[in-house]
Amino acid sequence: MQKLNVESDLSQLAVNTIRLLSVDMVEKAKSGHPGMPCGAADFSYVLWTKFMRYNPLVPDWPNRDRFILSAGHGSALLYSMLHLMGNPNITLDEVMNFRQWNSKTPGHPEYCLECGIETTTGPLGQGFANGVGMAIAQKMMAQRFNRPGFQMVNHRIFGIVSEGDLMEGISHEAASIAGHLGLGNMVYIYDDNHITIEGSTDLTYSEDVEMRFKAYGWHVQKVDGHDRKAVESALTEACAETGKPSIILARTTIGYTAPTKAGTHQCHGEPLGAEEVAAMKKALGWPPDEPFYVPDQVRQLFAEVRADGEAAFDQWNKLFAEYSEKYPDLAELWDTMHARRVPEDITDRLLALVDAGKEAATRDSGGAVLQEAARLAPSLCGGSADLAPSTKTYLKDYGSVRKNDFSGRNFHFGIREHAMGAVMNGMALYGGFIPFGSTFFVFSDYMRPAIRISALNHSQAIYVFTHDSFFVGEDGPTHQPIEHLAGMRILPNTTVIRPADAAETAVAWAAALKNTSGPTVLALSRQKLPPINPDNPSAAKGVEKGAYVVSESPSENIDAILIATGSEVHVALEAQKLLAEEGIFCRVVSMPSFELFDKQTGIYRESVLPRNVTMRVAIEAGVPFGWERYVGSDGLVIGMNRFGASAPANLLAKKFGLTPEVVAARVRFYLAKDSCGCFGQDTSMAGLI
Amino acid sequence: MQKLNVESDLSQLAVNTIRLLSVDMVEKAKSGHPGMPCGAADFSYVLWTKFMRYNPLVPDWPNRDRFILSAGHGSALLYSMLHLMGNPNITLDEVMNFRQWNSKTPGHPEYCLECGIETTTGPLGQGFANGVGMAIAQKMMAQRFNRPGFQMVNHRIFGIVSEGDLMEGISHEAASIAGHLGLGNMVYIYDDNHITIEGSTDLTYSEDVEMRFKAYGWHVQKVDGHDRKAVESALTEACAETGKPSIILARTTIGYTAPTKAGTHQCHGEPLGAEEVAAMKKALGWPPDEPFYVPDQVRQLFAEVRADGEAAFDQWNKLFAEYSEKYPDLAELWDTMHARRVPEDITDRLLALVDAGKEAATRDSGGAVLQEAARLAPSLCGGSADLAPSTKTYLKDYGSVRKNDFSGRNFHFGIREHAMGAVMNGMALYGGFIPFGSTFFVFSDYMRPAIRISALNHSQAIYVFTHDSFFVGEDGPTHQPIEHLAGMRILPNTTVIRPADAAETAVAWAAALKNTSGPTVLALSRQKLPPINPDNPSAAKGVEKGAYVVSESPSENIDAILIATGSEVHVALEAQKLLAEEGIFCRVVSMPSFELFDKQTGIYRESVLPRNVTMRVAIEAGVPFGWERYVGSDGLVIGMNRFGASAPANLLAKKFGLTPEVVAARVRFYLAKDSCGCFGQDTSMAGLI
Repeated sequence: MQKLNVESDLSQLAVNTIRLLSVDMVEKAKSGHPGMPCGAADFSYVLWTKFMRYNPLVPDWPNRDRFILSAGHGSALLYSMLHLMGNPNITLDEVMNFRQWNSKTPGHPEYCLECGIETTTGPLGQGFANGVGMAIAQKMMAQRFNRPGFQMVNHRIFGIVSEGDLMEGISHEAASIAGHLGLGNMVYIYDDNHITIEGSTDLTYSEDVEMRFKAYGWHVQKVDGHDRKAVESALTEACAETGKPSIILARTTIGYTAPTKAGTHQCHGEPLGAEEVAAMKKALGWPPDEPFYVPDQVRQLFAEVRADGEAAFDQWNKLFAEYSEKYPDLAELWDTMHARRVPEDITDRLLALVDAGKEAATRDSGGAVLQEAARLAPSLCGGSADLAPSTKTYLKDYGSVRKNDFSGRNFHFGIREHAMGAVMNGMALYGGFIPFGSTFFVFSDYMRPAIRISALNHSQAIYVFTHDSFFVGEDGPTHQPIEHLAGMRILPNTTVIRPADAAETAVAWAAALKNTSGPTVLALSRQKLPPINPDNPSAAKGVEKGAYVVSESPSENIDAILIATGSEVHVALEAQKLLAEEGIFCRVVSMPSFELFDKQTGIYRESVLPRNVTMRVAIEAGVPFGWERYVGSDGLVIGMNRFGASAPANLLAKKFGLTPEVVAARVRFYLAKDSCGCFGQDTSMAGLI
Repeated sequence: MQKLNVESDLSQLAVNTIRLLSVDMVEKAKSGHPGMPCGAADFSYVLWTKFMRYNPLVPDWPNRDRFILSAGHGSALLYSMLHLMGNPNITLDEVMNFRQWNSKTPGHPEYCLECGIETTTGPLGQGFANGVGMAIAQKMMAQRFNRPGFQMVNHRIFGIVSEGDLMEGISHEAASIAGHLGLGNMVYIYDDNHITIEGSTDLTYSEDVEMRFKAYGWHVQKVDGHDRKAVESALTEACAETGKPSIILARTTIGYTAPTKAGTHQCHGEPLGAEEVAAMKKALGWPPDEPFYVPDQVRQLFAEVRADGEAAFDQWNKLFAEYSEKYPDLAELWDTMHARRVPEDITDRLLALVDAGKEAATRDSGGAVLQEAARLAPSLCGGSADLAPSTKTYLKDYGSVRKNDFSGRNFHFGIREHAMGAVMNGMALYGGFIPFGSTFFVFSDYMRPAIRISALNHSQAIYVFTHDSFFVGEDGPTHQPIEHLAGMRILPNTTVIRPADAAETAVAWAAALKNTSGPTVLALSRQKLPPINPDNPSAAKGVEKGAYVVSESPSENIDAILIATGSEVHVALEAQKLLAEEGIFCRVVSMPSFELFDKQTGIYRESVLPRNVTMRVAIEAGVPFGWERYVGSDGLVIGMNRFGASAPANLLAKKFGLTPEVVAARVRFYLAKDSCGCFGQDTSMAGLI
């Protein structure tokens, strides 16, 4: 442990306040991480009081500096800072309610704009990469809106990152992107405390972080993280470096000033204990019996800092009024983007593009629709993890974002799916943008932790996953999603849509653009699909309801309902015809979205899936898991219970039993038995044929 | 494009054969990646003919060099090499059957030991990290078995990696581990061709790879990848470096020798086309009308290389016979480990450890069982992604693997879940080991692509995921798995077990050790759980059947069946009592594993869930998705349709309606209605209370 800093001035008092507020929070909650806030208090104090431009009374000020606590387990530090800064939502009561039901001070920071919590952190590496997304967004906004004398966007992205963040692979992906794009508007402090849960980082972590970040093209400095003067110089230099992202490697002692536990992993993830806290308070000259004590001088100090932030905001606000007068068009665009506005009639406008008579892969249909969507929604931007030529998501009219030129709206994320997801999250949280990201559906696994954060944050992020089944063909099982539709459907707050033709794809994209309360996943086909309703593409508006009848039973009675999604809707329609020839009459339902269907009224759901028709067959080129909900105890699910295989797609369809002929045969057999006879047991023949 | 190498000697002929075999494969399949094999042919030729020790006739020789094509899209290269080397399973017919149904030459390499395919690749970065796992395994085997004069294990791990591998975050995690452990037994060649699908790597990739790998502690060299003499020198030097992992940055031209497409992304992922192929063959002096042509001299050359491999194997085999005589105990251990033998009565032995009367978190029970399991199964080894103190998986008697000392059986993976999974895969494929890896269940998302590879490979890898529900408590929604049980259940070839007490945990661990045909996921509780059967822990053997009756209905008739897993079994048992007091009689079924239950006979399944009892209630602290399979159309699922929250766990149980009282009330209400009235619609009240 380093020698205690014995200066007794006001700043030291403030730093000790941060430490002890955090320690008291953890102590009262009997749960939490006291070590990180104690170690990071010195540089956090310097950052927030001397560099951060932040007005807690206007937490959504677009030109505020963003602060990200990527080391989310140190949440008590963030709440201490926000409370001291005077954020009206982080009251002393909230601070005392740390980690309790319905508090604004949960165990790990959860996105809450009015509280000053810019993103949800805790899953390591996510915050690191969110900041890269915010820095890209800042650069894009700055280039769109700044004019001589009107630097409407000139703030920075600050963050605190930990060993855990830097060990996670996502930090590599995001750091490489940040270096490549020369994001000189971001400054991270690495809380280099040499301690993780299992003990010293020596156990497992010996890379040269300085060299590593230099390799990415970052500006790197090393300081003693408890030397506030040194930290201040380093931050000054980092802010002056505008051509490269900056990281300051701040060597700290975890649990700094805790008399016996500082520097050990004992103070990482549990309360220090009454005795240790008492000794620490005594050593720091703190009142022994007054938890959550904040000296008046410290309150005063932070009030002054806040006043600076308020003044900065007022000045900006005045300037923005002038700007709006001088550049009314830009001001209007500013509003449109910050409202993430899309035209109310966007569904009709996108549907109007559909060449209703034409066969097309839904990835191609999606690509065509996307071009128009980008024209209609200036907030829309995005890219691919090195698969744009295959996912068809390049915005042809809008160029690519690159170093020193952020006017474009396309990103080349590289083969970095995880960072793509987290960058999208950062952009969505930043404001002004509706980000999309695309890759093959099977590789959604690589970005799953980021998608979960989109869902937790209720962020409007659009995931475009193409090559959505074994119809990928020759690339084989490593490239064929089987369990991925189910994998996305199980995520709360997430809308999954798998359209069946060009018209359904247009409606699906419109639904994604209108869904502002969470991520949308679009699952699109590699292979060509015929139109369902060449004469009436508007019927595809049924997609908005999650499921709808695409072909009524040719007879008054309904022998069975065939329910399918995406490419299998066409298999169902063909099977319906084959069955009708032999006097078996089926209704065909396209069910592109479980979530949208579940939101409909009981009356609507009954109209699509009448309770009295218990003979139901679901057809989907994926695992049957979850379909039992719609087919019921007597139902049959025709899906896949195995991984795919490498072979031409049409042959695979035969091998896996997903052709109209096999489906018709299975339905016939099923109806003859009057039940699948399998109560709860899937009988998919995939792989058995 | 670099100047064509015009030497006309035999080696050039061989290299051209590799190129054109690969090109012809892609051409015939009308699908595949010709550019990578053309670019990598030169260094691959040098590697396989001058460095690799491999006997294609004994593909499971433990001391063979391992070759990993991490850039799996270049599969045609691997098949060309294996065919030329004379692997009897990669015949010319198989080569000509590239990417066809049931061929041994699928689109991306799929693990096939007898074919010489050491691991499944294609999802980028996985192979890179598998190789690290193999290198760790090699070091562990070498230290266990080598004796003076008997270097039974002294082979190397070779691999080819691409831009995509190095961009993926997992390469960062795995490279950092490899550098930390000083894995001097691995040599990777980086096929640095500057091209990805979207075009030049300049678009997105400008990091200094040399500096980056030096930062990880690797030995790094740069060469012209088409200069075979330079490659040979570099490989010699890399092999001589035994203290650090090596990477050779080989600058190549994608599609090298393709007259017009070389150096462009047009030759990355599609056939070159008849015209280009004809021109290329003409330029290389190849017969125009003889696809898959292999000159006799080239066959002869590779026959000599193969003979070297056979001789090396014979020599080793002779030495091993001597070794077995001199060290019979070691030879026996060698056999036990390579057979991955576990005692047949392991279930009973692990059950015998259970303190049947005691409350315990299943993570603690699992930790206790694991100590004995490690004694009984010398193949068992593993670690945690920096959470061993929480997941309780440290093997107390066996030390930790570290640089220069691989005698231990514990790994400190660091906060690198993804690499942990892929390292486990590499160890499982290497032979001799049954690897386990542990983290919090919620972070299984970070390693999902690796778990999928375990499942594809049918590898015995054991995933120990603790903190398996919102009962995590204060850490909040970022740390509370909700959708993760469903997320694992949807994976083919994967067995998920969520035990309910110490006895069930012992049986679950035994089942994992006996399951040699795929990965097992153990979901364990953070919180303490009482024993189900304090007087008869053996009843927990029902776990082997996936589901069993833990408490029969107190009456002859069964009003409803309550089905639960893990901690919710106890909620069900308590609810059963409450309901019995008011004359409602329920059977309680513990269903720790869907997959194991689905494998049972119809008669057994009927005995647990009789068809005539349609009133069924599933209770699980996770998303209801998938439970409809067992409760049926009239059933009720009491689960969670939302993310968790930060608060003490017992309060959350109340808020989320997962207490015995709320469950009993819901069952009462449900039975009164004689149906959940929800055909396929979940009515979970989670979050509504």
